[in-house]
Amino acid sequence: MKSDIILLGHGSGGTLSHQLLDSLIIPILSQVAPGEQNDAAILPEQSGRLAFTTDSFVVDPIFFPGGNIGDLAVNGTVNDLAMAGATPLYLSVGLILEEGLPIEDLRRILESMRQAADIAGVRIVTGDTKVVPRGKADRIFINTSGVGLLEHELEIGGSGARIGDQILINGTIGDHGMAVLASREGLELKSDMKTDCVPLNSLVAKILAAGGSDVHVLRDPTRGGVATTLKEISLQSKAEITLDESGLPIHATVAAACSILGLDPLFVANEGKLLVVVAPESAEAVLAAMHSCPHGGDSTRIGEVTGAGEGKLRLRTAIGGLRSIEMLAGEQLPRIC
Amino acid sequence: MKSDIILLGHGSGGTLSHQLLDSLIIPILSQVAPGEQNDAAILPEQSGRLAFTTDSFVVDPIFFPGGNIGDLAVNGTVNDLAMAGATPLYLSVGLILEEGLPIEDLRRILESMRQAADIAGVRIVTGDTKVVPRGKADRIFINTSGVGLLEHELEIGGSGARIGDQILINGTIGDHGMAVLASREGLELKSDMKTDCVPLNSLVAKILAAGGSDVHVLRDPTRGGVATTLKEISLQSKAEITLDESGLPIHATVAAACSILGLDPLFVANEGKLLVVVAPESAEAVLAAMHSCPHGGDSTRIGEVTGAGEGKLRLRTAIGGLRSIEMLAGEQLPRIC
Repeated sequence: MKSDIILLGHGSGGTLSHQLLDSLIIPILSQVAPGEQNDAAILPEQSGRLAFTTDSFVVDPIFFPGGNIGDLAVNGTVNDLAMAGATPLYLSVGLILEEGLPIEDLRRILESMRQAADIAGVRIVTGDTKVVPRGKADRIFINTSGVGLLEHELEIGGSGARIGDQILINGTIGDHGMAVLASREGLELKSDMKTDCVPLNSLVAKILAAGGSDVHVLRDPTRGGVATTLKEISLQSKAEITLDESGLPIHATVAAACSILGLDPLFVANEGKLLVVVAPESAEAVLAAMHSCPHGGDSTRIGEVTGAGEGKLRLRTAIGGLRSIEMLAGEQLPRIC
Repeated sequence: MKSDIILLGHGSGGTLSHQLLDSLIIPILSQVAPGEQNDAAILPEQSGRLAFTTDSFVVDPIFFPGGNIGDLAVNGTVNDLAMAGATPLYLSVGLILEEGLPIEDLRRILESMRQAADIAGVRIVTGDTKVVPRGKADRIFINTSGVGLLEHELEIGGSGARIGDQILINGTIGDHGMAVLASREGLELKSDMKTDCVPLNSLVAKILAAGGSDVHVLRDPTRGGVATTLKEISLQSKAEITLDESGLPIHATVAAACSILGLDPLFVANEGKLLVVVAPESAEAVLAAMHSCPHGGDSTRIGEVTGAGEGKLRLRTAIGGLRSIEMLAGEQLPRIC
């Protein structure tokens, strides 16, 4: 690259665009040969239903403890496909770059994307790059869309929760949101907190193998956290969900930081967690399968579906009381993904 | 909607996010029932190869003569699928909104997207909405990704041009770029120019029916215009292409505006045009098929593949000379899509 920052011309479609693509983006992300670049990628025929999803990432800061906007963008879309019960196969990458972004930052982000894609076993097959003038974006925004394959006939979706179902989670809550916030605000605590961002597709495969059709809902509690996600499931399934406060896994540092800042960890975003709503007869088997996975060692039961009731989410407090949990109106933590 | 502008909270995942989704975005774009919102859309099994593409749109201004960023975003991705020879089926929509965007502007844009999707015959099946603070984006950026089906065994791609192939286009060049520029700069000429943005999938279907395997390349000359697109085809196919200057269809107003502003219409973006590289024996049949289509009435031959040569693009001038055309380095017209 002749320039060490992104110029408007890198988004023009001319020689600067081609240089950026041929010398940086394509070699790192996809290794498509120069003669094979077309307007769309051609994917082989798949036998089975497909899952299709999209997510844009605008996290601030773009680098934070344990990750950056690049691996976040890959894992976020991989996980959305996994939550539909699909095997993630192909990703697209749409970059919106602000003029002046250091090429070195872009390189680090792209390398993280590639590494995350390799770990998750997905291929980045198509992309697009736009550049906007200084002050018209914030360094880099990334859209990833994904296509996955449903290799089974199961129906996994937010409306599947039934009375008696158990609510499982694969580890501590609030890590991602607090790591990003601490990094953004320059909090001293930052060194003790890092994002939990990981791909969850292999964990989901194990869960489905163990629970089969008893797995009713899979959902990753990203924006809005565990509380908002469970509230959505409660609304979709018309089912009352009760959480056990004493069973909620929270890192001590995250709990302390939330306490200092007046934040409720139940509403803080996660990027490597999933909630499983599973029939009680399969809960133990699913939990055991989760424990055997790299990203499931700390899996635990945090609540259950306790009755009918659209949008009813309650917390059984440590001293035995019941508190109703409402969705937040607006922003607790803006731009955490 | 209680607010008449976009607030940060509309991107939080909380109740404001749900309101925006349930009262505006979903009813207009996709009409997915509230109980059916999941992290990914499930698509029925398709028999055949698939095409997958992505494009982010950052056009400035967001409203311009003949269209806006919404129908541009839908048609742009529909056309990328069509250029791969695919029937466009499903779109995703990723919105990045700047705090303060008038809800009414968003509504107009979403309605244009829906209308464009209906006309092109594609379904918007999944989406994502993020909000960034004032000054961190420019009103609205839209990513559309798309999945299409190849209903044939043809190999359409940039490397397929052969010596003797004819270069066809479906109408005048430079309309979109000049309409956006005139609108952005407040030029007096603006009323005479409007975008050519349309979906090209039905035109492509007719072209493939008429030309079959003699259709070697389909490409829409968007960013970088006709010259850059042909240069890319020349590079990919290692084939010299010669254009006839006198045969280039250009609206008089566009030609005049380009002349005043010192722009070369060959490098100005189009959003409703396609270039067809077709074997000479099928050129007449394809041209006749194009003429029978709503967006092909002004189709014409503009050049041919005249020899071997990687990246060689030449213009046969009106007085019979030959001029070599090079790609532009950077920006002739930034942010036209």
